[in-house]
Amino acid sequence: MEVVQVLHMNKGEGETSYAKNSVVQKKIISIETSIIKEAVQKCLEKNFPDSMGIADLGCSTGPNSLMVISDVIDTIYATSNQKEIPLPEIRVSLNDLPGNDFNSIFISLPEFYNQLKKEKNIGQEGCFISGVAGSFYGRLFPKKSLHFVHSSSSLHWLSQVPRVLDSNILKPLNKGKIYISKSSPRSVLDAYLSQFKRDFTLFLKSRSEEMVVDGHMVLSFIGRVSADPASGESCMQWELLAQALMSMALEGIIEEEKIDSFNAPSYAPSAQEVRSVVEEEGSFTINCLEAIEIEWDGGQQAVKTIRAVAESMLEVHFGKEIMDELFKRYAELVGDYISKTRAKFFYLVISLTKKG
Amino acid sequence: MEVVQVLHMNKGEGETSYAKNSVVQKKIISIETSIIKEAVQKCLEKNFPDSMGIADLGCSTGPNSLMVISDVIDTIYATSNQKEIPLPEIRVSLNDLPGNDFNSIFISLPEFYNQLKKEKNIGQEGCFISGVAGSFYGRLFPKKSLHFVHSSSSLHWLSQVPRVLDSNILKPLNKGKIYISKSSPRSVLDAYLSQFKRDFTLFLKSRSEEMVVDGHMVLSFIGRVSADPASGESCMQWELLAQALMSMALEGIIEEEKIDSFNAPSYAPSAQEVRSVVEEEGSFTINCLEAIEIEWDGGQQAVKTIRAVAESMLEVHFGKEIMDELFKRYAELVGDYISKTRAKFFYLVISLTKKG
Repeated sequence: MEVVQVLHMNKGEGETSYAKNSVVQKKIISIETSIIKEAVQKCLEKNFPDSMGIADLGCSTGPNSLMVISDVIDTIYATSNQKEIPLPEIRVSLNDLPGNDFNSIFISLPEFYNQLKKEKNIGQEGCFISGVAGSFYGRLFPKKSLHFVHSSSSLHWLSQVPRVLDSNILKPLNKGKIYISKSSPRSVLDAYLSQFKRDFTLFLKSRSEEMVVDGHMVLSFIGRVSADPASGESCMQWELLAQALMSMALEGIIEEEKIDSFNAPSYAPSAQEVRSVVEEEGSFTINCLEAIEIEWDGGQQAVKTIRAVAESMLEVHFGKEIMDELFKRYAELVGDYISKTRAKFFYLVISLTKKG
Repeated sequence: MEVVQVLHMNKGEGETSYAKNSVVQKKIISIETSIIKEAVQKCLEKNFPDSMGIADLGCSTGPNSLMVISDVIDTIYATSNQKEIPLPEIRVSLNDLPGNDFNSIFISLPEFYNQLKKEKNIGQEGCFISGVAGSFYGRLFPKKSLHFVHSSSSLHWLSQVPRVLDSNILKPLNKGKIYISKSSPRSVLDAYLSQFKRDFTLFLKSRSEEMVVDGHMVLSFIGRVSADPASGESCMQWELLAQALMSMALEGIIEEEKIDSFNAPSYAPSAQEVRSVVEEEGSFTINCLEAIEIEWDGGQQAVKTIRAVAESMLEVHFGKEIMDELFKRYAELVGDYISKTRAKFFYLVISLTKKG
């Protein structure tokens, strides 16, 4: 399965759409806001540029897409006012995979530009927004064109399922599971970690080509605090989904082999794993690296969130027709789990500066 | 009616889609090819840039969208090989109105990048394609960021219906017609010409901010050779559409007032009108200005082409439910007309250089 071709957030504005089910991501963004603000201010500290490049990687679609951009522009505006320096020309690039619903972002732009004009008197010649389709695990932007880069809720997606998991069709390595699990052999854990290292290194290398010296980058993604990659805090969402799938296999609704051959192209790294990749790659210094604890709320929001982000992939593998039944069972398992445990997961937020 | 919100080419890949009905536009592009090639070569003559900005304005969707870009890259590639200078970093912006189907362009990009890699060994770090949604009658790109600009089959669309035509609801100026017609009063002709002048001036002013000195621009759009703006060569397509609408009004299928209050936001300027706007605006010199004669082919391709480009607007005004009937009647009228006359229309192709 090619992640580039298959992964996208659920489209449109319906009950199961990403646009209606991105409350968790919105919460993260609001926590990030102060970190972003500080990073943008630092971008403008040494050299106030005439033209400033900003990119949001994994922008997705829906109300969150332009929220961060709006915050960033607010900060640039306030800083330039405070320093009494004319506002730089602002170049904004919104990036996501080619299957993302860019049309719905573009439709909302005229209203966004109207607001900029009304609230800050920033006209057509002051802000240029473009869409860039492609994987951030590779080059996306011209050389030294970016001053500030942001990515929220995206870097826990890998560029691909670790190849070794895909290649053992006759002897599946990760039987009955779809992600790292307590029962997974060491080779599964190693495969996931090494895929993460390769992907995140490529991400940093690509951005280091695209960013100016002293440019800033704020990233947030699902991670973990525990050193153990099989700990519940980072695996439970997939563990329960595997249970739901297995219960359907037991009833003959889907084939067990289908489950054995599916593995999530996702990884929740520890803060230490993230730190060591950044240090080894060498282009960036770490300003801060924080873990934010997020509770699975009592309701079924967690289920809806996962459905909105993972359904496109599950559909391709298991078939569209079983999705409603799968998420019904998943909702029950999640409800049960939440009632017994104070279930939580973690987001890592990291702020980086491009070295000279 | 806001053109920015309503105008888009028919989406998808169905029978009436723009993607399947853009043969005429394809023909124009192939005629333009040599003019484009020359212009791109000239861009690289004086200063061979490290990074080269290219924009296609009104890129639309379907197979034509990336064809011109592909030709431009071919020329850059050949020129850099011939001069033995490393290929510049190529930045491509694809622009159209926010309602355009950008998603289907983005979906085709991975294949486009693969071809670039295979045929010319241009990798991820060599070519950056982005989508920019907005009206080209205003700023779209950062200052001095473009070396070559192209627009095909788009500039005959105005930014709006001339206001004076929209404002006389009680006493419609252009009764029973939807564009300039032999029976139109002078005020209608004047209103269209003055809207064209205003729009095209704004277009040139905006591009002159965005382009580097000695940058080149190749534009093609529907125009006319005759000095008379009511001559058949530029009006017949709308004249016959008005006839089809009026025949439906006579049968009570639509209200005549609906026709009186609809006017096409389009203008086919003469070569002289184009030349005088360029000279008055003053930022560009004209390298060449040619008229290309195009025959309405014997089949019904003309009808399909018009449907693909104009249906989105007609639908909003007259209702979706009458579209099939309208285009059936239109097809009959066109068939009849073509059988009696050697029907033709004209495209103007103009090549411009940004002054120093």
